[in-house]
Amino acid sequence: MKINGTPYRSVWRDAQDPALVHIFDQTKLPWTLDVLALREEDQVAHAIRTMQVRGAPLIGAVAAYGLAFALQKDASDVGLKDAAARLVETRPTAINLRWAIERMVAHLQPLAPDARVKAAYEEADAICDEDVQVNESIGRHGLELFRTLWEKRRPGQERLNILTHCNAGWIATVDWGTALAPIYMAHDAGLPVHVWVDETRPRNQGALLTAWELGAHGVPHTLVADNAGGHLMQHGEVDLVIVGTDRVTRQGDVANKIGTYLKALAAHDNNVPFWVALPSSTIDWRVTDGVKEIPIEERSGEEVTYVHGIDEQGQAARVRVTPRITKAANPAFDVTPARLVSGLITERGRCEATAAALASLFPDQAG
Amino acid sequence: MKINGTPYRSVWRDAQDPALVHIFDQTKLPWTLDVLALREEDQVAHAIRTMQVRGAPLIGAVAAYGLAFALQKDASDVGLKDAAARLVETRPTAINLRWAIERMVAHLQPLAPDARVKAAYEEADAICDEDVQVNESIGRHGLELFRTLWEKRRPGQERLNILTHCNAGWIATVDWGTALAPIYMAHDAGLPVHVWVDETRPRNQGALLTAWELGAHGVPHTLVADNAGGHLMQHGEVDLVIVGTDRVTRQGDVANKIGTYLKALAAHDNNVPFWVALPSSTIDWRVTDGVKEIPIEERSGEEVTYVHGIDEQGQAARVRVTPRITKAANPAFDVTPARLVSGLITERGRCEATAAALASLFPDQAG
Repeated sequence: MKINGTPYRSVWRDAQDPALVHIFDQTKLPWTLDVLALREEDQVAHAIRTMQVRGAPLIGAVAAYGLAFALQKDASDVGLKDAAARLVETRPTAINLRWAIERMVAHLQPLAPDARVKAAYEEADAICDEDVQVNESIGRHGLELFRTLWEKRRPGQERLNILTHCNAGWIATVDWGTALAPIYMAHDAGLPVHVWVDETRPRNQGALLTAWELGAHGVPHTLVADNAGGHLMQHGEVDLVIVGTDRVTRQGDVANKIGTYLKALAAHDNNVPFWVALPSSTIDWRVTDGVKEIPIEERSGEEVTYVHGIDEQGQAARVRVTPRITKAANPAFDVTPARLVSGLITERGRCEATAAALASLFPDQAG
Repeated sequence: MKINGTPYRSVWRDAQDPALVHIFDQTKLPWTLDVLALREEDQVAHAIRTMQVRGAPLIGAVAAYGLAFALQKDASDVGLKDAAARLVETRPTAINLRWAIERMVAHLQPLAPDARVKAAYEEADAICDEDVQVNESIGRHGLELFRTLWEKRRPGQERLNILTHCNAGWIATVDWGTALAPIYMAHDAGLPVHVWVDETRPRNQGALLTAWELGAHGVPHTLVADNAGGHLMQHGEVDLVIVGTDRVTRQGDVANKIGTYLKALAAHDNNVPFWVALPSSTIDWRVTDGVKEIPIEERSGEEVTYVHGIDEQGQAARVRVTPRITKAANPAFDVTPARLVSGLITERGRCEATAAALASLFPDQAG
């Protein structure tokens, strides 16, 4: 999407040196647009672990290039297998990471070692291009839904109010985003969308990234504390909730950023549609009951006790928001049961969050 | 309650100069224990508006002294009426503020003007002492509930996990607190309570005040992002939610800090008891449907876009957490419908959140 008029992707090969891959350092956004050059597997692992790249689809795409980097040093069967294992371990919850690495290994394993590096770059490129196509399809299918809602608007209603949690925007994918793809398309098509952006504590991906993305592209939006969504829904200020996801189970349970479940409960209680946008690579067909089966990453309590931003001088800074002796717990994701999900928006169209609907839309994957 | 072993109230008359009233500057807590001396109505109004004092019961008590200060300058009927009107307007949502001022006026109006100052101080003292007694009663009735839950604990369960939102502790009242009163009593009685403290964005009263209070008194607790509560409840980590309230309607709807409604939804979805602790002065018998009838204070968006804390040098500081162009909305309260409330804990005992149960417990007030 655009940053103040200029189109970008969130990962791209260097024009002069095609062995080099660029990303934005998302830990610096929105204060600094810092482009990193990656050429080593270690740099990729570091970028994923420290969340310089984040967002399930983008992590998968960048990890694929990481495998290409690793093969430049050791393209043997053992080299391929070990690098794949190391990369998969960099973030435990994101299913796309495993999906991308498994796809790379399946493609590269049958090849002769000396053909693997070139093929790895090409396959990583293909993963990126397909991600863009997939998200564009998600955007198109979501846009239809938005149009339907807009046609049913109340008399005098001036905007279509959409609430989103965390960041499932273009910067979390290669381009377009998942949850934000239909928002960008709707805005570009002239639909008067307005987005309530949950700040998304503790890491504030909404306040930092979603607000930045939407602002840079020119989409009207308002930041709110995560606590505000229920109140807004009670008072008719939300027409639709749309979020991305890190993992969807075969029955349609949705693992996403911590707090998503609370918004789904509020949407359900107020008859507000609650939709989840995802590429089908996010579906984990091996898992059924998300609440019971999906392990939830517990991150450092310091993400809660310290808040990062810029100080009065515009410098990156952090403040401690609780007494020094206070300890914090920090589960990073929660699971929204399928019963609270109005539907899923995938690259193949929309479907109910049920095992039958998912299997019917993806008979080739459901197994 | 105690601050590192020393007992305090959160408002008290000066021992040497009884016309002087002391409070903690709660905008400085927990970083600095700064005691303010008040002797002018203007100082009281400023303290309420800037949230140097906050918490519905404490606001009422301090406003009562504010009326005494005003009468020192003008104890006429007009002086009394005007000062009462000015003080009531300092915070729109808190019903206790109006309750305390109306009680003061009802007591003082019949007296000769030259008897009003002394009587005003005495009545304000009485409001404070009664607040302490009321909260102690709330604590006792809540403690019974905690004991019942602890008796029904799971085999091997080592602690009674209680989640609270915002700050309804002793620092929000004259002493004991409302929601925290039973927690302090349970802890002092040897029940192994552990408190999940919601940070309570945007003003972080949980991270700042509740965590500080509990830590200073020695009660085990863990800070969590507001987003985490639903996940904790899904996984059996919460035995009870208890919150305070700024206003309860005659049918038991509960206005409280923004985000309370989301926790009530999660508690309901996971069969976790959701209790509200309140002095009966918090009940607004003139209001029935809280969602429709209670006006919600919209505060500055800067409370969302800036976060306050201490910097690496231990100095009070703030950081901006979103791009400079991003605007925020900031509704300060929400309303939890009575259907989501397991029950109310009042100074007269526990009751269901229904019009019939409230009228039965308070036949003298229900009218």
